[in-house]
Amino acid sequence: MKQIMLAHGGGGEETQKLIKELFFKYFNNEILLSMEDSAVLNINSKVAFTTDSFTISPIFFSGGDIGKLAIAGTVNDLSVMGAKPLYLSCSFIIEEGFPFEDLEKIVKSMAEELKKTGTLIVTGDTKVVPRGFVDKIFINTSGLGKVVYEGVSAHNLSEGDSIIVSGTVGDHGVCIMAQREGIDMQTDLISDCDSVWTLVEDLIKGNVKIKAMRDPTRGGLSAVLNEWAESSNVEIEVLEEKIPVKPQVQGLCELLGLEPYVLANEGRIVVAVSKEDTEKALEILRKNPLGKDAQLIGKVNSKGKKRVILKTSYGSLRIMEPPAGEILPRIC
Amino acid sequence: MKQIMLAHGGGGEETQKLIKELFFKYFNNEILLSMEDSAVLNINSKVAFTTDSFTISPIFFSGGDIGKLAIAGTVNDLSVMGAKPLYLSCSFIIEEGFPFEDLEKIVKSMAEELKKTGTLIVTGDTKVVPRGFVDKIFINTSGLGKVVYEGVSAHNLSEGDSIIVSGTVGDHGVCIMAQREGIDMQTDLISDCDSVWTLVEDLIKGNVKIKAMRDPTRGGLSAVLNEWAESSNVEIEVLEEKIPVKPQVQGLCELLGLEPYVLANEGRIVVAVSKEDTEKALEILRKNPLGKDAQLIGKVNSKGKKRVILKTSYGSLRIMEPPAGEILPRIC
Repeated sequence: MKQIMLAHGGGGEETQKLIKELFFKYFNNEILLSMEDSAVLNINSKVAFTTDSFTISPIFFSGGDIGKLAIAGTVNDLSVMGAKPLYLSCSFIIEEGFPFEDLEKIVKSMAEELKKTGTLIVTGDTKVVPRGFVDKIFINTSGLGKVVYEGVSAHNLSEGDSIIVSGTVGDHGVCIMAQREGIDMQTDLISDCDSVWTLVEDLIKGNVKIKAMRDPTRGGLSAVLNEWAESSNVEIEVLEEKIPVKPQVQGLCELLGLEPYVLANEGRIVVAVSKEDTEKALEILRKNPLGKDAQLIGKVNSKGKKRVILKTSYGSLRIMEPPAGEILPRIC
Repeated sequence: MKQIMLAHGGGGEETQKLIKELFFKYFNNEILLSMEDSAVLNINSKVAFTTDSFTISPIFFSGGDIGKLAIAGTVNDLSVMGAKPLYLSCSFIIEEGFPFEDLEKIVKSMAEELKKTGTLIVTGDTKVVPRGFVDKIFINTSGLGKVVYEGVSAHNLSEGDSIIVSGTVGDHGVCIMAQREGIDMQTDLISDCDSVWTLVEDLIKGNVKIKAMRDPTRGGLSAVLNEWAESSNVEIEVLEEKIPVKPQVQGLCELLGLEPYVLANEGRIVVAVSKEDTEKALEILRKNPLGKDAQLIGKVNSKGKKRVILKTSYGSLRIMEPPAGEILPRIC
């Protein structure tokens, strides 16, 4: 099998062959191998349920590929709800003629990312569409997690709460943009694409009271903070100089007239904790390699303003506007 | 808003507007409206989990559209596992410039199909890709159901079991093919696209012991029966004259050299029951408008042959081959 043909999505012999020889090889678990129309699961707990389709271009990028992203993305959406990721579904939409070798690379990379959290792909679907009707490959993953920590919500912020990010912002966005535009960054900048569950698990085990938590993907840090300000009816104040941004990310942003705060991240979390828990949370996050650059970046001011204020290093204040417009299509 | 723009998938203001003004309007329920990264659910039972991506062309067809199909398809995958459909995720991949009016028609049709089974869309995702990178719109739905009937499996067939189909076969396949090729059928043939949960529920309530059950989508009746023969290590014998096929479906199949048994159905079930339960199962199915054409089409012969035999009306025997090749791309 050198390339994917329409027959691989036809539901007949070739589909069975693809499932057995590729997907079962890498996503090997008893539930998936039962091959029924649905997976049957036992989860004795509240369940978190989420979905995401991935249409990123290019499909292979520094620090990851569409497969790694499709696992991390959904694992992260569960994680930030305080849910331990358990089971994923995986649905491929593949363009006729797509190289089998590339599909295998993607599937292998998905399997590797799954291992980091022990999450299993338990059900799937493959569609193949004729040339020109889809760009290479799109992947949907939906996920189920066991809620192990309750009460995380965008509505929970109150005066004095601290806002923490787990690492530098904008890496994924700038990395994809540079690669797409053929800009040679001449640096080792890679996407931050990763599964953040261990960060969340560490906070929970450390008894940090997590008030709100999000992974700042499309729309970046700005989207998360503006949504929190809106949902909790508060003003959030952020110190620009505290936001960790890599110099090469800052540089390209200035060149292109973008702000790193609206760029997508795929392996970061933003957390709101009470003032008392701030130091403990930072310490816990920084002990995990994924959180080594964690920073306290701001705090929640008074009720009633519903806005995000950015305090620059010169001491001036401006609004961190919610992202709008077509920032970067196909970033995830 | 006249058409979908890249910004609607950017994760910023326009995405929020689309979610609130369109999706919340039609998929209105408390869980979805909480707007967290994952939906949090309470299901105190075994859970069935399934996924399907829909890439059908044309997106509007006689008897349905891609939205209706995306709901029925996933609802049906849960139903045939003996699971009452409860919650769906919904992920759109939309081409830039797609008419808003069409999207609203699709979403409305999804909402109508959901009502038939009381299933809720509780989490979602929207991606917009630039023109030419996807053909109009693709939809993924993943679903969760509460397992209310256990033991349905492709491995369960034994000698003497009856094979029943709930209605005519090939309607969806022929309908889409005709429309795509611009063939005027000059008949009222419509796709069978529908949610089959009530059929399954009726069988369960009627205490029919269901041994195996599938919805014959891609690969049609032939794919289901061949998979059962393989998984249960049995020979299945089917009487050709008993398989319900509409005359216009038969006619077009003959014209195009296709067999109705490999064409996709989107609102049918194939059920295997013991000999004793056969009459009761048929009676129950025929009472439901969705099952009015239900027929006993064959039986399970001895162990060990792993094949499906088709007995023609002239008494001759031939193998019902498993479907292979690119029968009809983008049929679902």
